[in-house]
Amino acid sequence: MSDGFGLDHLPYGVFSVAGGERRVGVRYGDGVLDLHAATGRPEFAQPSLNAFMALGAEVWRQTREEVAGLVDGADLVALDDAVLHLPVEVADYVDFYASLDHATNVGQIFRPDAPSLPAAWRHLPIGYHGRAGTVVVSGTPITRPHGLTRDGYGPSQRLDIEAELGFVVGAPSELGSSVPFTGLGDHVFGVTALNDWSARDVQAFEYVPLGPFLGKSFATSISPWVTPLAALDAAWVDLPAQEPEPAAYLGPGATHGLDIAVEVVLNGEVVSRPPYRTQYWSPAQMLAHLTVNGASLRTGDLFASGTISGAEPDQRGSLLELWWNERFLEDGDEVVLRASAPGTGGGRITLGEVAGRVVGSRP
Amino acid sequence: MSDGFGLDHLPYGVFSVAGGERRVGVRYGDGVLDLHAATGRPEFAQPSLNAFMALGAEVWRQTREEVAGLVDGADLVALDDAVLHLPVEVADYVDFYASLDHATNVGQIFRPDAPSLPAAWRHLPIGYHGRAGTVVVSGTPITRPHGLTRDGYGPSQRLDIEAELGFVVGAPSELGSSVPFTGLGDHVFGVTALNDWSARDVQAFEYVPLGPFLGKSFATSISPWVTPLAALDAAWVDLPAQEPEPAAYLGPGATHGLDIAVEVVLNGEVVSRPPYRTQYWSPAQMLAHLTVNGASLRTGDLFASGTISGAEPDQRGSLLELWWNERFLEDGDEVVLRASAPGTGGGRITLGEVAGRVVGSRP
Repeated sequence: MSDGFGLDHLPYGVFSVAGGERRVGVRYGDGVLDLHAATGRPEFAQPSLNAFMALGAEVWRQTREEVAGLVDGADLVALDDAVLHLPVEVADYVDFYASLDHATNVGQIFRPDAPSLPAAWRHLPIGYHGRAGTVVVSGTPITRPHGLTRDGYGPSQRLDIEAELGFVVGAPSELGSSVPFTGLGDHVFGVTALNDWSARDVQAFEYVPLGPFLGKSFATSISPWVTPLAALDAAWVDLPAQEPEPAAYLGPGATHGLDIAVEVVLNGEVVSRPPYRTQYWSPAQMLAHLTVNGASLRTGDLFASGTISGAEPDQRGSLLELWWNERFLEDGDEVVLRASAPGTGGGRITLGEVAGRVVGSRP
Repeated sequence: MSDGFGLDHLPYGVFSVAGGERRVGVRYGDGVLDLHAATGRPEFAQPSLNAFMALGAEVWRQTREEVAGLVDGADLVALDDAVLHLPVEVADYVDFYASLDHATNVGQIFRPDAPSLPAAWRHLPIGYHGRAGTVVVSGTPITRPHGLTRDGYGPSQRLDIEAELGFVVGAPSELGSSVPFTGLGDHVFGVTALNDWSARDVQAFEYVPLGPFLGKSFATSISPWVTPLAALDAAWVDLPAQEPEPAAYLGPGATHGLDIAVEVVLNGEVVSRPPYRTQYWSPAQMLAHLTVNGASLRTGDLFASGTISGAEPDQRGSLLELWWNERFLEDGDEVVLRASAPGTGGGRITLGEVAGRVVGSRP
C-alpha cells in the first residue's frame, strides 16, 4: 500500500475511468473508492466535491467515519486506471502572504532600499484575490505566459513557483457577517498542496498600486486530493509568537498552525524543504481576516497560505528566493510539490502532490 | 412607456413574480417579457443569464432580432410586480483603473510626493481581481464594513463609491490562448452599471504591496439589467490619443470607447456626471490585456472600467475625488448610479440603474 494513504488519511478527489462520468472518490492506498457506488448518495455523483462540501461539518465527520468502515476489503478502482480531475469548483480564490521569512526575502530582493516588511504586515495577514478560473489540477501543463515587462512585450523570462498550501471552504457564510477565528473547523473542509505559478518580470512591472494580476493569473495548480481537516488532527502546533499583538478578531495569543512538511522537487531533485509549522499567520487568522469586513464565503472558496519559506536557505518556497533572483524555470522543467504531516495513527500522511511541467510559450 | 427602454434597447435580466421561480426576461418599457414563456427555450428557465450567454454571439444576435418581433403587443409582466435578481452568476471579477483623470486624482491624494501615475500606467491597463462572491444586485443594502485602519479596528469611517461600468463575458476562451483586441464582440455579452463600494481607510492600510483586498471585497453592486453590446452600436466613439503608443496586442491607434453618460445621485441629488467617452483604456484593450498571458475567460466573468472620472471637478466618479478626501458616506445615505447612451433609433437608451443604501455597521 502507498505510504501515507491509510485509514488515518482518506482524502477526497474527483475521478473518472475510461472516459466515464466524473465521480467523487476517496483514496485508500493505491486505490480509489467510488463513493457514489458505495453509498448511493447523490452528492457523490458530481463532477466536483462542492455538493458534498456544502452539507457541512457534521456530514463531513459522519462520512469520514462511514468511509473508514467501507474501504477495507472494498472493491477499489486501481489508481492507475483513474483519471484525476480538478476536485473543487473554485468559487473565489484568495492568496495570502503569511510567511515572515518569505515576505522578508521578497522585500530585500524587490525593495532593497525600503524596510523589508510592508507597514501593515505584522498587523494583519496581507492577501489579495487571484483568478479562480485558472486554478488547474496537478499535471496540467503550464504554458509560459507572455506579457509586458520593463523590457517590453514577450514571453516571461522569470517564470517561478510558489510552494503553498490551499484551504478549501465547504460551508458558506452570510454576507454582512464575519467568521470568528474559532470558525475554521466549521467552514474549512480540507487542505491541498498548491503551486502559485508566478511570472516575476510581469509582476514587477504591473503590481503598483493594485497588486499582482497577469503575473499570477495564468495558472495556479492544486493537488487532486483534498485532505480533510480531520486527518490533520495530530498536526496542530503552536506558532511562533506574534509581536505586536494583533487585533482581537485575529485571536491573539493562541495561534495554531499545521506541522506540514513541504518538498519542492525540480526535475526529480529535492531543491527545498519549506516548513509550514513556522508560518507567522495561522489558517484561522486568515479566515477571520478574510471575512471581518462582512464578505461572505461560498462553497468552493479557496484561500492559500502564500509562499512557505523557512529561515534557512534550503527552506525557501520560491526560486526567486532559492536562487536570489538570478535564475528561473526553463521550458521543459517539471516542478512537483510534495507535502506530509503527522497522522492520527502515529505515522505520517502524504498530502496529494501537485506537479506541472513548463511548456514553451506560443509564438 | 419608460424612456430609454424601447425597441432599440431590450436589456436582459432575471426576475421572479410572487415568490415563483427565477426566469430570464427582457425589459421593454415598464414591463418584462418572460423569455421562457415566450420562446420555450430551456436556457431561459434559469436563475441567471449564464446558460443563454454561453451560447455565443450568433445566438445573442438572433435572439435579439426574435425578441424585437415579440415584445410589441405581448403580455408583459408589470415591472412593479417583478422582483429583480442578480442577473449573472459571476465567475471571475476583475476591476481596472482605466481613467487617466481618476488615476491622477488618486495619486495626488494618496501619494502627494510621488508622480501621480504609477510607472506602468500608460503602458498597460492596470487591473486586479476582486471578490466575485460579493457582487450583488442593485437595491441590496450595503453594511458598513469593519476593518483595521491606521487608527485601529472599527467600522470604516471613509466609505466611498466608485462609479463604473461592468462588462459581462458570455463566450469563454481556452486556457493558454489569448483574446485579440478585436475580440470584444465575440466574447462580451453586455454592459451593466457598477458601483465598486470602497472603504478608503481599510484600503489605505492594507494595499501595499498586494493591492486592495478587504477595502473592496465587502460589496460590489451591479444593475439588474444587462444592456446587450448590440444596443450600444451607435455609442462608439474614438478615445483620446494614447501616448506612448501601447504594445501591438493592445491595438494602438484605433481605440474605441463608448459614449455612455453616467450620473452619481446621492440622496436624490445629482452630485456628479462622469463621462465614459473620455476614458484612456478601451474595453477591447482591457479584454486583450486580461487574457494576453493565456488566462482563460469563463461565461459570467465580469470586468469593470474602474472609476470613471472626467477632467472637470463635477465629473468625478468617487467621493474621494469629489470631496477631496474630506467627507464620505454616512449611514442611511443612498447612492444611485444612472447611465445612458445614444441608441440606434436616434434617441437615448437608459442603462439599468444601480442603487444601494448604507446601513449601520454591526456592533
